[in-house]
Amino acid sequence: MHQEHIAKQFDVELENVRAKVLRMGGLIEEQIESAVNALQDGNVSLARQVIETDRRINGLEVSIDEDCTHIIARRQPAAGDLRLILAIIKTITDLERIGDEAKKMARMAILLHDSDRLLQPHLPVDLRHAAHLAVQMLGHSLDAFARLDATTAAQVLRDDRDVDESFRGILRQLITFMMEDPRTISNAIDILFAAKAVERIGDHAKNMAEYVIYLVKGKDVRHTSMEEVERTVISDY
Amino acid sequence: MHQEHIAKQFDVELENVRAKVLRMGGLIEEQIESAVNALQDGNVSLARQVIETDRRINGLEVSIDEDCTHIIARRQPAAGDLRLILAIIKTITDLERIGDEAKKMARMAILLHDSDRLLQPHLPVDLRHAAHLAVQMLGHSLDAFARLDATTAAQVLRDDRDVDESFRGILRQLITFMMEDPRTISNAIDILFAAKAVERIGDHAKNMAEYVIYLVKGKDVRHTSMEEVERTVISDY
Repeated sequence: MHQEHIAKQFDVELENVRAKVLRMGGLIEEQIESAVNALQDGNVSLARQVIETDRRINGLEVSIDEDCTHIIARRQPAAGDLRLILAIIKTITDLERIGDEAKKMARMAILLHDSDRLLQPHLPVDLRHAAHLAVQMLGHSLDAFARLDATTAAQVLRDDRDVDESFRGILRQLITFMMEDPRTISNAIDILFAAKAVERIGDHAKNMAEYVIYLVKGKDVRHTSMEEVERTVISDY
Repeated sequence: MHQEHIAKQFDVELENVRAKVLRMGGLIEEQIESAVNALQDGNVSLARQVIETDRRINGLEVSIDEDCTHIIARRQPAAGDLRLILAIIKTITDLERIGDEAKKMARMAILLHDSDRLLQPHLPVDLRHAAHLAVQMLGHSLDAFARLDATTAAQVLRDDRDVDESFRGILRQLITFMMEDPRTISNAIDILFAAKAVERIGDHAKNMAEYVIYLVKGKDVRHTSMEEVERTVISDY
């Protein structure tokens, strides 16, 4: 009876942490969307809001980290649960760094739209498609995490290629503009950094998906090829 | 007596893990030096060696991760030791990503020195100084970790500003070259990505230093200002 009580208490604590991670993830999806909109529309007040909200994300990371440490110390979880908690600790590190990338984009929005820089030629580059792909990857990683679904996680690994391809497309576009009109170079470099931030968001979402596959399949898929990952994921079917 | 035996066994295991982390760190310092030399000297075979060695680093990460999980599951460490092990798990994630940045630089070296690209104008940009600063930061982070020395760790946080400043200097140089001769743009962008890799190495070393401060001072210094960090670190003196 006492054991059972402890077990239930443990489940409640674990469920609370998982819910907090998903809330953190939802907040970050919003941050990316807002940052790219601020950048495309030159919306400086939206950019400021993204920078301000990043504090809340940092606070969530610290708080979830503490929750996880307390759960391990007090509940001394068995191997399976322990692996889940360690995956959470790794996941929130990537989530927090996705938040940092969104903040960088917001800063870029403010930089690009301040008065001096607007005198330079305007660049018709759209990051929305790439950002949309990255947000989708992040959403799928969070779904995979919530349902411990290795199939969805494997899809995220494949989708990262689309984000990378989209980044290379933007890079080619920017190089063309710079070659045609060297006055665009400074702005183009700033937009390039923003595009790089989107690409990194995809990388972090991919890391998160790898933790889910590890958790479900008990095999470390980091540092293995896409083909091996797919063998691991379909091994049960 | 039995308790004491367990405690000793635990110390041995923990010491083994710490030694492995330092070995991994040493290997990565070498990787960064080799990658930047490959890039500057157009040494393609050195670049290939860096890419090959990265597998060993990935293997070390997976192996240390498993060691840490086993120690927690079997030894059920008390809060202080648990925090140390969790800091190790986070540290090796950053170390592995530093390794990835070195690999990216090595790939860039191969790309820049293949026959087609050599037809483009040569760019007299030197990344060695920035890379040297970043390797120094990493070395100090590893020292701080080995000795659990918060003062050295705080120094790393300050040094990150120098790496960032050095990156901005390279960026200004590259923009000047591109403006003067648009034919340099493609190569300049590749060198820019290599410089960005160096800047990110500094960021990862900074993350590692923050874990050490957290460990020693029991206060989470991530997401706090430099001034707060210094207050935390000098609070004992």
